[in-house]
Amino acid sequence: MTEAFDAVDLIVAKREHRVLETAAIRWLVDAFTRGAVADEQMSAWAMAVLLNGMERREIRDLTEAMIASGERMSFDGLGRPTVDKHSTGGVGDKITLPLAPLVAVFGVAVPQLSGRGLGHTGGTLDKLESIPGWRADVGTAEMRAQLADVGAVICAAGADLAPADKRLYALRDTTGTVESIPLIASSIMSKKIAEGTSALVLDVKFGSGAFMTDRTRAEELARTMVDLGTDAGVETVALLTDMSVPLGLAVGNAIEVAESVDVLAGGGPADVRALTVALAREMLALGGQPDADPEAALDDGRAMDVWRRMIRAQDGDPDAPMAEARERHVVLAESDGVLLEQDAKSIGVAAWRLGAGRARQGERVQHGAGVLLHAKRGDAVRAGQPLATLLTDDEGRIPRALEVLEGAHVVAPAGTAVPDRPVVAGRIAAG
Amino acid sequence: MTEAFDAVDLIVAKREHRVLETAAIRWLVDAFTRGAVADEQMSAWAMAVLLNGMERREIRDLTEAMIASGERMSFDGLGRPTVDKHSTGGVGDKITLPLAPLVAVFGVAVPQLSGRGLGHTGGTLDKLESIPGWRADVGTAEMRAQLADVGAVICAAGADLAPADKRLYALRDTTGTVESIPLIASSIMSKKIAEGTSALVLDVKFGSGAFMTDRTRAEELARTMVDLGTDAGVETVALLTDMSVPLGLAVGNAIEVAESVDVLAGGGPADVRALTVALAREMLALGGQPDADPEAALDDGRAMDVWRRMIRAQDGDPDAPMAEARERHVVLAESDGVLLEQDAKSIGVAAWRLGAGRARQGERVQHGAGVLLHAKRGDAVRAGQPLATLLTDDEGRIPRALEVLEGAHVVAPAGTAVPDRPVVAGRIAAG
Repeated sequence: MTEAFDAVDLIVAKREHRVLETAAIRWLVDAFTRGAVADEQMSAWAMAVLLNGMERREIRDLTEAMIASGERMSFDGLGRPTVDKHSTGGVGDKITLPLAPLVAVFGVAVPQLSGRGLGHTGGTLDKLESIPGWRADVGTAEMRAQLADVGAVICAAGADLAPADKRLYALRDTTGTVESIPLIASSIMSKKIAEGTSALVLDVKFGSGAFMTDRTRAEELARTMVDLGTDAGVETVALLTDMSVPLGLAVGNAIEVAESVDVLAGGGPADVRALTVALAREMLALGGQPDADPEAALDDGRAMDVWRRMIRAQDGDPDAPMAEARERHVVLAESDGVLLEQDAKSIGVAAWRLGAGRARQGERVQHGAGVLLHAKRGDAVRAGQPLATLLTDDEGRIPRALEVLEGAHVVAPAGTAVPDRPVVAGRIAAG
Repeated sequence: MTEAFDAVDLIVAKREHRVLETAAIRWLVDAFTRGAVADEQMSAWAMAVLLNGMERREIRDLTEAMIASGERMSFDGLGRPTVDKHSTGGVGDKITLPLAPLVAVFGVAVPQLSGRGLGHTGGTLDKLESIPGWRADVGTAEMRAQLADVGAVICAAGADLAPADKRLYALRDTTGTVESIPLIASSIMSKKIAEGTSALVLDVKFGSGAFMTDRTRAEELARTMVDLGTDAGVETVALLTDMSVPLGLAVGNAIEVAESVDVLAGGGPADVRALTVALAREMLALGGQPDADPEAALDDGRAMDVWRRMIRAQDGDPDAPMAEARERHVVLAESDGVLLEQDAKSIGVAAWRLGAGRARQGERVQHGAGVLLHAKRGDAVRAGQPLATLLTDDEGRIPRALEVLEGAHVVAPAGTAVPDRPVVAGRIAAG
């Protein structure tokens, strides 16, 4: 078969800062998916894109080509608006759990296709699987029925959504070509657009525990994704949020579910509640409910009701006891003062090393493992007071977790001013 | 086995403009050679190097690592100095043929490991194989004996010289990562240093028919290679030469051998003789014969004597008739005037399309094919006068050769000044 383009030409074009035409990008993604462009060619191209960038039109073409590589879902016949949310990932980021039922309270449907964790950021499905009986795999028909009935579904994405993105992502992971805004943005947005949501709220994180530590880069990523959503006809808004400290007090799986249930019961840590409410307001506005009051729905039990129905619909028992770690180790404050730093990345890596996360796809996680914090940044602490409890089923994992926690908690002399860092640091909308 | 380095770390380091330590570069080349670093990782790394560059020390380390991947020859016991020459490749570049015997006349040994052509630049071995019986494969012992006896050998490089370079070059060829000065320089110099020559003269070409069309880039390449040779203890000098027009009048295989024999007989085109003599003077100076007179050795038959012995030593018959093309087509001047341009690249591609070169490794070439020019840039021409004769065994190849020759010859009105472009445009030595 004669190919429409030559892979080397397209690599050289990107290497020389040239703009690729739409047909060239379509061909490249298609040829890569069917094996006519080799991995070593695609990785060289990805490196050229990483170093030389892509224009808005090229990123849109790449996103569309990845969507076209697989099936595209649609919730058009549902009779109510659908709004999805995506977080770029953080430490203690369990927000999807209270958020999806909270938004559904107001008649806005939330089809939340989620992933599993890799590395120091946890995965929503890993967390929910701490609930006895709960099942992540939901077919398209069942998903539609649950959206019509309960209004919210959190489940695993099928393999048929943007398969070209899956292949490209796996390649980028081993070739040092992950950290490219055009490639990250098109990867995330190809899956989200293929899911067929009518609107989308992005939680783009910055700070040590985030994928994108630098705020300016996170803003650029958010802007690129908002543009992509807008160009594809999906109304998209992004919140820029702080991930220099973990969200809430629980970092793990079962303990994050428990904390989410606290928020659904009207309590929970202030930052988890605040971010849940902020994201809910954005989703509700996009879903045509700008005047809805999500705080009330947390306080009066309506969000909890939807949560319980949502868990039961996927065979989970919301009342069953969840796994508890067999071993625990308490980290104590060494001096009196104020907690000045509580490094998100270190705490995320510690939870991962304790068994809450995985190093390789397919590994099992420990549902009871993780780090439970006993103080938040800005709190006054006393020498000897517990700062964190490490949870794991294997005592042998504790030393390497302690190693990474060395220096993660910084206690400053009492009276030291702790600068205020609000969770929601910015908002980016179309235009 | 635990690896000393991680491929992704080294890719990211180069991506982020960091300098790689010696041990890291050694590991990378070794791990790539044994398959522990995958092709898609090496191509991403090569793209990062192409776009972000390497320091002199890194290029030296890369060169040494590629040399270390294979055998290293030595001519130490030969009892006379050895000087090698390398050309970056051009159109009508048959200089090695008269040059090697010419230098050997003065007792300086020339161990000339050569290659076959690919694309529009011909290969020395393809040209010499036009001579009936001549054989390119010469073992190390035979090579040494011929150097001691005749003083010059032109033969194929063994597969054991810098095998890592062979693998990397094949990968670069399909991944748009050829045009990087650090990678080109280390590729050429790893083979030349592994050959064990004590001194080296480089012919670095620029202009349309050269690999590096831009003069400034060619100078940078020359400087990089001179530095690499110097750092490795091989005295190295580079001439920067013009390749905007073909060298001589013959572009092909047998016709280039015939033109070389003309030069060895004291005649031949002025530019071929001039470049042969200039390179010979450099090689002789490095070989301890600064006062030798190469012009005299061309004029009095001494160079021809060595040529005949060199060809016979490799079973060739210097007096046997060579292949002649079955078909010929003459291109005529369309107007009176002066020949202002005679584009080297177009003429090289035409010769290739006529069958003198190959598109893929392993293809056979036609020994009789090529382009024979009847005028040189700057000559006065008359309408209807032959400008070039196309030679091929397949008449069907002529139209595509004519297509690329469209516009290659530019005839300007009589009296138009043709700027003087000397063949040797510059010289670069150590320091």
